[in-house]
Amino acid sequence: MHMVGKENTMKECIHTVQYYETDKMGITHHSNYVRWMEEARVVFLREIGYPFEKLEELGIVSPTLSVSCEYKKTTTFTDRIAIEVTVREYRGVKLFFSYEMKNEAGDVVCTAQSSHALLNTEGRPVNVKKEFPDLHRVLTEMVTPA
Amino acid sequence: MHMVGKENTMKECIHTVQYYETDKMGITHHSNYVRWMEEARVVFLREIGYPFEKLEELGIVSPTLSVSCEYKKTTTFTDRIAIEVTVREYRGVKLFFSYEMKNEAGDVVCTAQSSHALLNTEGRPVNVKKEFPDLHRVLTEMVTPA
Amino acid sequence: MHMVGKENTMKECIHTVQYYETDKMGITHHSNYVRWMEEARVVFLREIGYPFEKLEELGIVSPTLSVSCEYKKTTTFTDRIAIEVTVREYRGVKLFFSYEMKNEAGDVVCTAQSSHALLNTEGRPVNVKKEFPDLHRVLTEMVTPA
Amino acid sequence: MHMVGKENTMKECIHTVQYYETDKMGITHHSNYVRWMEEARVVFLREIGYPFEKLEELGIVSPTLSVSCEYKKTTTFTDRIAIEVTVREYRGVKLFFSYEMKNEAGDVVCTAQSSHALLNTEGRPVNVKKEFPDLHRVLTEMVTPA
Repeated sequence: MHMVGKENTMKECIHTVQYYETDKMGITHHSNYVRWMEEARVVFLREIGYPFEKLEELGIVSPTLSVSCEYKKTTTFTDRIAIEVTVREYRGVKLFFSYEMKNEAGDVVCTAQSSHALLNTEGRPVNVKKEFPDLHRVLTEMVTPA
Repeated sequence: MHMVGKENTMKECIHTVQYYETDKMGITHHSNYVRWMEEARVVFLREIGYPFEKLEELGIVSPTLSVSCEYKKTTTFTDRIAIEVTVREYRGVKLFFSYEMKNEAGDVVCTAQSSHALLNTEGRPVNVKKEFPDLHRVLTEMVTPA
Repeated sequence: MHMVGKENTMKECIHTVQYYETDKMGITHHSNYVRWMEEARVVFLREIGYPFEKLEELGIVSPTLSVSCEYKKTTTFTDRIAIEVTVREYRGVKLFFSYEMKNEAGDVVCTAQSSHALLNTEGRPVNVKKEFPDLHRVLTEMVTPA
Repeated sequence: MHMVGKENTMKECIHTVQYYETDKMGITHHSNYVRWMEEARVVFLREIGYPFEKLEELGIVSPTLSVSCEYKKTTTFTDRIAIEVTVREYRGVKLFFSYEMKNEAGDVVCTAQSSHALLNTEGRPVNVKKEFPDLHRVLTEMVTPA
């Protein structure tokens, strides 16, 4: 069995809260965190050598099947949010990510999860292990159970 | 004990998918469903006689504590989505909603949940039962467990 | 020469300001008006018998070349905004729209303009007059100079 | 008279196009450029020593009075856009910015303008010259006519 240290499997990106992301309560509108999760996945996939563009070239699309967010603390305009993303599970045709978002003081502001299918361009599940063994290996190594 | 039929407690609103809500996959970007949940809550609260404006006047703010969505079918530009919203639980300082979104063919495209705090403008929990007995009664009557 | 009364050429749609469209100033974020202009164009094209879907079927795409907005009064959550859209000019491969947005009191809150190309799916200008004479006729009739 | 070289008065920020900013045409939705203009202003004001937070502390709000964009080339997901922002005019209670956005190949993808009021928190014009002489000096020095 192959073990990978947490420090190698967790990727991080920074999002600076924009004025247009705030709402009349004076805080970041809660829908934006779902967008930041996507930003973090984009960085994650790029860092493991499989950016969206490459997946598209390979004929793989990865629609979002579910998302969930728990809002712990509010954030607002100019806050810099660090988003850590981890692969929690990888089942060949399905990927599960978790996210931890922290403000600059180190407080957790949001925890989140998402799941995604791995489909071909006709919308059918891809046999990643057989068709894309390198991607399969990389994703398998990235898994860090909760 | 007071019973209210399902038909009285469930409220519905319609959202027409806009071009600017689609993404390069050609479908509605998944983050928008979280916004439609808010649209549905706004309609719900207005229909039960407690629109956002009135809650604000009463000094009640209701930040979102959590959201979750399961995407069942894709939707896209010009689709008309019916969003049913139901109060699942009401615990005095916390409200739990569930949502069912259907396309015009009647297919469920998304199911979702959200939870919300009931706070005063200083951010402290409101004793709704004591301070706002009518709102307490209305919310209690609306609860329809899953 | 064919004259069409203003009441026939101007189309209107209503947009209700959503909570997620407000910003920390407590007002509608100014970027949203550009989205409402698109909503109004969608309604306009549908009402003249050429909804986006039909244009797409005909192989016509209509990218936005320019937009401009002048903000006259602020709007905010729950305001119902009436958006009137008028074709100002139609030059065969280019369409010019103007917009007037009013609040429920009848005050103009925003005036705006946009221009759009009429291209085929390869991105080349479409000879609308020759290839789509009915669309050409309809657009020509809609023109109401400022 | 005080002259400031172009290199000192023009500020630049980079925006990476996000997946959620694309639309079903496969390109960046045109409304997002208005948001990037705001991102660029935020960077500009910070770099000249007057970040939004500081303006707020001083009791100055700066609502957008107008925007206009000309779209020259399409952009899409993962493109890195350099946004240059320049003060074109400063009339005491009104600020005029222009923007030039370029892709990584150096092509201009969008040119834009915006104007903004300088108001106090009651919504009345601020006498910047008298009340905030340092801000007045800095803005005056930044002006680079087209």
